[in-house]
Amino acid sequence: MANAEAAMVSNKQIIFPDYVSGFPKESDFNITTSTIDLKLPEGSTSVLVKNLYLSCDPYMRICMGKPDPLSSSLVPPYTTGVPIVGLGVSKVIDSGHPDYKKGDLLWGLVGWEEYSVITLTLHSHFKIHHTDVPLSYYTGLLGMPGMTAYAGFYEICSPKKGETVFVSAASGAVGQLVGQFAKLMGCYVVGSAGSKEKVDLLKTKFGFDDAFNYKEEKDISAALRRCFPEGIDIYFENVGGKMLDAVLINMKLHGRVAVCGMISQYNLENPEGVHNLPTILYKRIQIQGFGVCDFYHKYSKFLDFVLPYIREGKITYVEDIAEGLESGPPALLGLFEGKNVGKQLFVVARE
Amino acid sequence: MANAEAAMVSNKQIIFPDYVSGFPKESDFNITTSTIDLKLPEGSTSVLVKNLYLSCDPYMRICMGKPDPLSSSLVPPYTTGVPIVGLGVSKVIDSGHPDYKKGDLLWGLVGWEEYSVITLTLHSHFKIHHTDVPLSYYTGLLGMPGMTAYAGFYEICSPKKGETVFVSAASGAVGQLVGQFAKLMGCYVVGSAGSKEKVDLLKTKFGFDDAFNYKEEKDISAALRRCFPEGIDIYFENVGGKMLDAVLINMKLHGRVAVCGMISQYNLENPEGVHNLPTILYKRIQIQGFGVCDFYHKYSKFLDFVLPYIREGKITYVEDIAEGLESGPPALLGLFEGKNVGKQLFVVARE
Ligand SMILES: NC(=O)c1ccc[n+]([C@@H]2O[C@H](COP(=O)([O-])OP(=O)(O)OC[C@H]3O[C@@H](n4cnc5c(N)ncnc54)[C@H](OP(=O)(O)O)[C@@H]3O)[C@@H](O)[C@H]2O)c1
Ligand SMILES: NC(=O)c1ccc[n+]([C@@H]2O[C@H](COP(=O)([O-])OP(=O)(O)OC[C@H]3O[C@@H](n4cnc5c(N)ncnc54)[C@H](OP(=O)(O)O)[C@@H]3O)[C@@H](O)[C@H]2O)c1
Repeated sequence: MANAEAAMVSNKQIIFPDYVSGFPKESDFNITTSTIDLKLPEGSTSVLVKNLYLSCDPYMRICMGKPDPLSSSLVPPYTTGVPIVGLGVSKVIDSGHPDYKKGDLLWGLVGWEEYSVITLTLHSHFKIHHTDVPLSYYTGLLGMPGMTAYAGFYEICSPKKGETVFVSAASGAVGQLVGQFAKLMGCYVVGSAGSKEKVDLLKTKFGFDDAFNYKEEKDISAALRRCFPEGIDIYFENVGGKMLDAVLINMKLHGRVAVCGMISQYNLENPEGVHNLPTILYKRIQIQGFGVCDFYHKYSKFLDFVLPYIREGKITYVEDIAEGLESGPPALLGLFEGKNVGKQLFVVARE
Repeated sequence: MANAEAAMVSNKQIIFPDYVSGFPKESDFNITTSTIDLKLPEGSTSVLVKNLYLSCDPYMRICMGKPDPLSSSLVPPYTTGVPIVGLGVSKVIDSGHPDYKKGDLLWGLVGWEEYSVITLTLHSHFKIHHTDVPLSYYTGLLGMPGMTAYAGFYEICSPKKGETVFVSAASGAVGQLVGQFAKLMGCYVVGSAGSKEKVDLLKTKFGFDDAFNYKEEKDISAALRRCFPEGIDIYFENVGGKMLDAVLINMKLHGRVAVCGMISQYNLENPEGVHNLPTILYKRIQIQGFGVCDFYHKYSKFLDFVLPYIREGKITYVEDIAEGLESGPPALLGLFEGKNVGKQLFVVARE
């Protein structure tokens, strides 16, 4: 219920000063402190939240680039001079919206700040009903990345038992789940990642059948041939560029590529050339780009599917949790150097 | 019926001496004359045919390249030292096969020679039942290219009335039909081709809504923007390389690309880099490679569909017919310089 009585508190914020080109730096973020009234004005239909866990996601780099009609079809560019917008888990402090009341938990788009006033639109926010799992999971396994892995693997890849699956950026927020879903489906799954620690995680914790460190392989195509002597049925693409080139020539006849992301391209002014596209013809390959935004109507179906697996310990999840609002920018930048091990997020407050 | 009585005649042949790299030349073909017995040996299950119309198809360049496991998944490499194998319309001279008798007409794989002995396998050859249309059409409109346009457009592109369609190499054997099918479907169709004459054909004869000469456009992407201010729903890809790059950034959200061919790449040792692949993600595009070989079981359905349109004059077809077996090699090479206007074939004999 909105309340006219003012209650001003300070609100630390991470401001997005201007569009960036190339690799972003910490100086591309400004930290400021403003004040905010913890009571919404009378008649407001917004929701005022306290931000608990905020998420670092690769797509945010796309929003930081100069507005471009191509990428804007997937994610809107940031507004300069206001806080970075990202996904997070938050607690309702005041609400003018009938669906939310004080104390409710939700996840969805908020500012990189201690408190945010949010306007609800279709699928912009989801109320959190299950709290027997870590709340932070709603930035990852039970949030946007989880939904991405679910829709991308089951809907876009159309997997069948016994098929061979390759996942790039496999230890990350999305990839670790794709690998586990593929194992549940009875597929043979191989992942690539950028360090020995991550490769070990893939094999020991997430149950990948095999994994390799792409930074240590002189010839990625040869590494793929070693792991998939008969070829790849399904490629879950997170990386793009050279990795896609190497994968294409290792695909099986009628193979499928689900294009979830191309993180290696987000910081380039001009995307790299990919050469092996005639393979699409020779092997009659299907490549399908997708956005999780088109699948949020299936979110509750996803929860029904995944929560039992989590409770039974059949799906596990690794998070990389930084401490404090100030840790947001370096944590976000770290994604592009592979510093994160598992889902990258940061805590603003624990309750 | 196979017959023991020998009847030797001379048989002019175009031999494939060795694998080529780069652009093929006329010296990559040898013309020889051998002899052939016009009676099959007793007990043969083969069919001996006289070749009438032989077809020049871009895929033949792929067969001329060094055997490569990638492209071999679509088309087998040629055997050196024997006649070039291609599609043609032929008349049965002698038959040891129960389905064929002397005088029957068929189309399918034969040698580039006056007479061929063929072994029938699934969908390798089709008997010709309808002769109220030009026989040569069975190398084009009613043969492999027609079936390619039909399967590619209706099955792979999943077109809907009102959608915008772009076709490259649009005046060719396949392209001219894709454009006409798209118009029948109620789509807005634009084609590109390599000369003013071809562009005129597209607009006046094949009913394309618009067309441009890609060789005269400094900026192909700008030409596409001019023709498709709202973007492209369906791209029927015949060309690859730079054209694909320009098309990708002009695709609509959820656009579809049917990869029929990439002729601009067949003569290159290393395929060109295509840069705009992140658009696949941003616009959630589907790219699907296909081979007509996977659709021949629908050939009689295709004939039932297309023959009435031909008889009613609602589908037209332009052919480029060279004279004589010797004209085969230059006609084939001409495809890669765009010398052909419409479906390229050559006549060995008219009956
Ligand atoms: N389509 C959608 O709706 C949707 C939704 C969510 C995510 N995504 C995409 O999915 C992909 C994975 O996202 P995530 O959240 O799971 O991120 P993540 O994998 O947790 O973190 C990013 C990882 O990417 C790898 N990486 C960074 N730069 C790279 C480069 N130049 N070459 C190769 N690998 C590089 C790094 O791992 P290594 O140490 O292994 O290199 C890094 O840890 C991203 O492309 C993202 O944009 C798409
Ligand atoms: N997937 C399958 O099963 C299947 C079956 C049949 C055909 N195809 C493919 O479909 C495409 C068209 O075949 P078609 O039989 O209809 O051939 P076509 O269009 O009749 O003849 C080839 C045409 O391609 C164009 N071309 C040649 N080199 C080019 C280059 N470097 N850049 C741009 N355009 C070039 C030329 O036209 P311009 O004057 O317009 O440049 C030329 O006339 C080919 O790629 C072929 O391989 C695939």
